[in-house]
Amino acid sequence: MENQIANKVVVHNPKTGEALEGQFETNSLQDLSGAVKNSEEAFHIYRKVTPGRKAQFLEAIGEEIVNLGDQLIERAVAETGLPEGRVIGERGRTVNQLNLFAKLLREGSWTEASIDTAIPDRAPVPKPDIRKVLIPIGPVAVFTASNFPLAFSTAGGDTASALAAGNPVIVKAHNAHLGTHQLVVSAIKNAASRLELPTGVFQSLTGEDFTIGQELVKHPGICAVGFTGSFSGGKALYDLAVSREVPIPVYAEMSSINPTILLPSATDQQSSELASSLAQSITLGSGQFCTNPGLIIGIASEALDQFCIKLGEEISQISGSTMLHAGIFQNYLDSSEKAISQPGVNVLSKGKLAEAGLIGKPVVVTTTGDNFLSNSSLESEVFGPYSMVVQCKDSQQLTKVVEQIKGQLTITFMADEEDIPSFRNLISLAETKAGRVIFNNLPTGVEVCDSMIHGGPFPATTDSRTTSVGTDAIKRFARPVCFQNAPHELLPEELKNENPLNIMRKINGDFSTGKIESK
Amino acid sequence: MENQIANKVVVHNPKTGEALEGQFETNSLQDLSGAVKNSEEAFHIYRKVTPGRKAQFLEAIGEEIVNLGDQLIERAVAETGLPEGRVIGERGRTVNQLNLFAKLLREGSWTEASIDTAIPDRAPVPKPDIRKVLIPIGPVAVFTASNFPLAFSTAGGDTASALAAGNPVIVKAHNAHLGTHQLVVSAIKNAASRLELPTGVFQSLTGEDFTIGQELVKHPGICAVGFTGSFSGGKALYDLAVSREVPIPVYAEMSSINPTILLPSATDQQSSELASSLAQSITLGSGQFCTNPGLIIGIASEALDQFCIKLGEEISQISGSTMLHAGIFQNYLDSSEKAISQPGVNVLSKGKLAEAGLIGKPVVVTTTGDNFLSNSSLESEVFGPYSMVVQCKDSQQLTKVVEQIKGQLTITFMADEEDIPSFRNLISLAETKAGRVIFNNLPTGVEVCDSMIHGGPFPATTDSRTTSVGTDAIKRFARPVCFQNAPHELLPEELKNENPLNIMRKINGDFSTGKIESK
Repeated sequence: MENQIANKVVVHNPKTGEALEGQFETNSLQDLSGAVKNSEEAFHIYRKVTPGRKAQFLEAIGEEIVNLGDQLIERAVAETGLPEGRVIGERGRTVNQLNLFAKLLREGSWTEASIDTAIPDRAPVPKPDIRKVLIPIGPVAVFTASNFPLAFSTAGGDTASALAAGNPVIVKAHNAHLGTHQLVVSAIKNAASRLELPTGVFQSLTGEDFTIGQELVKHPGICAVGFTGSFSGGKALYDLAVSREVPIPVYAEMSSINPTILLPSATDQQSSELASSLAQSITLGSGQFCTNPGLIIGIASEALDQFCIKLGEEISQISGSTMLHAGIFQNYLDSSEKAISQPGVNVLSKGKLAEAGLIGKPVVVTTTGDNFLSNSSLESEVFGPYSMVVQCKDSQQLTKVVEQIKGQLTITFMADEEDIPSFRNLISLAETKAGRVIFNNLPTGVEVCDSMIHGGPFPATTDSRTTSVGTDAIKRFARPVCFQNAPHELLPEELKNENPLNIMRKINGDFSTGKIESK
Repeated sequence: MENQIANKVVVHNPKTGEALEGQFETNSLQDLSGAVKNSEEAFHIYRKVTPGRKAQFLEAIGEEIVNLGDQLIERAVAETGLPEGRVIGERGRTVNQLNLFAKLLREGSWTEASIDTAIPDRAPVPKPDIRKVLIPIGPVAVFTASNFPLAFSTAGGDTASALAAGNPVIVKAHNAHLGTHQLVVSAIKNAASRLELPTGVFQSLTGEDFTIGQELVKHPGICAVGFTGSFSGGKALYDLAVSREVPIPVYAEMSSINPTILLPSATDQQSSELASSLAQSITLGSGQFCTNPGLIIGIASEALDQFCIKLGEEISQISGSTMLHAGIFQNYLDSSEKAISQPGVNVLSKGKLAEAGLIGKPVVVTTTGDNFLSNSSLESEVFGPYSMVVQCKDSQQLTKVVEQIKGQLTITFMADEEDIPSFRNLISLAETKAGRVIFNNLPTGVEVCDSMIHGGPFPATTDSRTTSVGTDAIKRFARPVCFQNAPHELLPEELKNENPLNIMRKINGDFSTGKIESK
């Protein structure tokens, strides 16, 4: 929640409405040009920094964030309305992400180093020596999310992965948590200074409106964009980026309703437990998760009726909690109101409204499969503590509903052993619609690890080939280059015969951590 | 060279101008819809076909192409004007590419399978089992190139890599070699039939104009596009694809002038040899290679003068040869004429014009670094047997010229040991501009192997993160999905505990071809 005072922005506490300490200066387009110029200059230094030193930089950022101590937690709590425990947990995740990328840099196989050695006497033409490695792409613009003020923000996954790949970063700050942002900026700058990196390696910009962000994406010096937020915001940046004279990739994680499919036998056996756990998942963090289960799909039955009754009871007992800022709150009011007012949509129950303020009141609704299939607006994301139960008349209709839904971050099956044989094709279909297919777990909760995909087909993201969580996120900000018959001293360390970084490589098609004997 | 007869297209021999046998029916938009529907249906079968059977399919395509025998070679020679030896060599490369992807499928590590096993007793929350693998993305549209009627056409690298990844393909035929196309289509269909694959796994479309291709890219059922050809063609398809309601990736390999940088000591030592070999490279295949050295950059010196004289002499002795079709020929006339008529551009020499017809007459020109830096049109691609020597006044200006040039498929350095210490930064800069950096080899000649990158920053391609030659080309047509706590029987073979495909995987962060002990 922000107001504008001349060229300064003030942040408000979403719980109390009060203006928080600090007036944050906004940046001019001249500042933007200067920042991109610094970034371009820093690129040519930073891209050549050793993986070990880049790893130290990431670890130093984590240490400096921890060093900020309670003031960071207090400020983030005040700016977001999120509970202190959640913010402390998120700080831990942020530091873990930075350390995970540091580990990845030292391990080195992410660079996909590959060497095909020469065969000088091959007929009819000699085979040259070809060696390939991933290299950084150039200055990256990162747009931060309001719902994770640390883990998807200033030093979040996009920044960490772009820096890890060897790119300078310019963060466009989210105006809802500028105090948190500024603290984290100071931590990153301290870390850069400790590692004697150029100041252009990390910079940030603040704007009163969308202009500075739009101009950042349009600037010829920017080579890629990371974004987490709304569909309208992400798609607008994508449209700008692909319309540039030189188009650039945009990794926007945008919109997902995370269908949760209740298969019949599991529903029969556990309708009450499923209702309780889903009620918690729907309302967790006021529903402000990209992986919030906004759509629950089942086959009409007595057990599904019982599930709906129980879900309604559970939700009616849950108090709404403060949403992140006035914009998100208003959007929740509008979009949930629109969904509820659609023909054939019935409210199962609403949560309690314990306090005044920007409270997202939980709502669960239900509709039939027929109605869902005939009204595409029911698939629109309602960002907040909301979910819709779609009651299909049979398994054919369930399949039709899954066929109709757009790209998702996650699809979840609540299924037991009896369900699996009959729903094998449906489960296989889910693969083509989502980045992550989950069984008997809630979609909220994203493990940060090598195998995690937090991505998915459009409109979940603008690039289904990528993930914004987990180690593969680094590949978004790199591209391959190969060297043909290069003098050995000019090769990157990853490609040298002696394998000085001791990394896993592909040599003439075989994986190896070994050296190559020079001839 | 094609003319239109009602709804049929006839192909002409570019050497003789005569109409070749065969009238090729064009497809309606209804045919297009039907083809995409078949493709979508085939996708759900083909994506589940085992890697071994997909490999057999690719190998069978190669066998069927070889089985076409002399008729394929004769038709391709007649349609393209390319020498028989070249077409035979290209057939070999096409078959090798198919076999290389077959080998890759059996080896299996391209799927980037990664497993993070569960830690049920982790505090504060249990760690779930997460397993990731690359899966096919869906029906792929392939636009074929006229300059490689086999290796970048109907069964070329785009088709081979898209099929290898598990996607059905719809090829938009190039009208310049429809007879060749039709023969190769029959080979692929025979191969699909031998492997009992659905007919929708491979289809092709022919159009009288651009409409059918444009509508193919806009069709909601198409999930990615491969293209090799001109900047205007590739960029137009890119613009259509990113403007769709659901944007899709376009892998267009478009425009590159392949700067060849003559460093001073190498020029001193080998001006004559360099001139001879570059003259051959510039005029090879009438200059109709994506990697043709269209820009040669050096520092003004007596040795560079000698190089220019020798290059001129060599070119003046080379006869022009027939270009692929009337469109390419006319484009060469127009674009070379435009380049030559720019102020400050001087013709070094022209080749001989031995025959009548669509002959691309070789031309080499020269200009100063100052002139090149002040006239951006000099960087435009002239597709054909043309090259421009830019004479820089010093090494600073040489660096400026390289800084100014746009993204390229290749940058080549002619350099000896004495050159390297002084030009280390320039060589490092080249990495940021190209997909392949070559030393003392000619850019024409692309090795098909794991480490090859035939790609590069825009405008060389629309996606610098990829290659269209070599095994990594398969990754363009795949995306990752992860499974969380999936019942073991539902996991893809790549992710099963017992590693039935015996592939290299990452297990809890470590590379392994081993099994996982089930608990």
